[in-house]
Amino acid sequence: MSRDPFDELLEALRCLPGVGARSAQRMALHLLERDRDGGRRLARALGSAMQDIRHCRRCRNFTAAEVCRICADDQREAGLLCIVEGPSDVLAIEAATGYRGLYFVLLGRLSPLDGIGPADLGLDQLERRLDEGVVQEIVIATNSTVEGEATAHYLREMAGRRDIKVSRLAQGVPLGGELEHTDRSTLAHAFSSRQPML
Amino acid sequence: MSRDPFDELLEALRCLPGVGARSAQRMALHLLERDRDGGRRLARALGSAMQDIRHCRRCRNFTAAEVCRICADDQREAGLLCIVEGPSDVLAIEAATGYRGLYFVLLGRLSPLDGIGPADLGLDQLERRLDEGVVQEIVIATNSTVEGEATAHYLREMAGRRDIKVSRLAQGVPLGGELEHTDRSTLAHAFSSRQPML
Repeated sequence: MSRDPFDELLEALRCLPGVGARSAQRMALHLLERDRDGGRRLARALGSAMQDIRHCRRCRNFTAAEVCRICADDQREAGLLCIVEGPSDVLAIEAATGYRGLYFVLLGRLSPLDGIGPADLGLDQLERRLDEGVVQEIVIATNSTVEGEATAHYLREMAGRRDIKVSRLAQGVPLGGELEHTDRSTLAHAFSSRQPML
Repeated sequence: MSRDPFDELLEALRCLPGVGARSAQRMALHLLERDRDGGRRLARALGSAMQDIRHCRRCRNFTAAEVCRICADDQREAGLLCIVEGPSDVLAIEAATGYRGLYFVLLGRLSPLDGIGPADLGLDQLERRLDEGVVQEIVIATNSTVEGEATAHYLREMAGRRDIKVSRLAQGVPLGGELEHTDRSTLAHAFSSRQPML
């Protein structure tokens, strides 16, 4: 006996992060009652995204092409390379900043305990790219976690051996944040790294 | 130029209720990075649900068959009919109670201001069903809203003309609820409808 399509849909929706039994039910009923066109469109979009999206040959970000739109854009500064942990970081930087250079996406962070070493992050590919001599400066935008810092340290060494300028995102209290709600280590760092006020 | 499959997916995910730009991004990246099989399965489940699921010829609930599983189940009491506003109410009653009768799903509620009259709720179909003489009792489980109450009143009249027993879900303070957090009208109703304690 074949499964009921409604139950099948409820179960399939739960592969989405943050979707439990109740939200799955709400989503399924919403689509069936009010937006079948949206549901059909989502089915098609999911199908082609799962099949066609792979990693850019240059930067390892997600793309449906050989080379992603950012890498293929000759208006962007090829001498500036921002190195991030994941595709969501590229989206965040693109949305928040006016950055006009290129990216390299590690798809992870150095984590010897989990068996994640330089090769898993495409660092051999990155070394070859730095050796091409086009990149003049790298902006290290790995997360401010222990592993992100270790990765940043490794990247700084790699760039240092090639005489490439290196910068790292500024760390401190978040804008609009209140001191009393800022965690201790962030506050301690921001205090000791205080900047002259102009 | 064709749309980018990633952007297409982000936009399509937003047809889901409660999913904004940020959740859509989180869902898309989760599926691409960690669960492509889940994404493909969801695409298939959505496709067949949107195409195959229609309304049961007997009770108007969602089903992929001519007649839904509950209506087709001859173990259920055909003399008992619970009338609800929507498919989610059937799911809620099935999950919470031991009800073993059948259902009739209005797919709405009487709302003259919105132009929703008896015909839109399949009440002509319901009248013919009550005329068959099989239904002995109806349980009215429309919502406790103004429109749900108006619909319940209409249904009671309909059953009354045919000498069919009518009941309505009990109203009062929710179990486990605290009086101070119960809304005024519920509390007033529960107080005036207080039950002898055995």
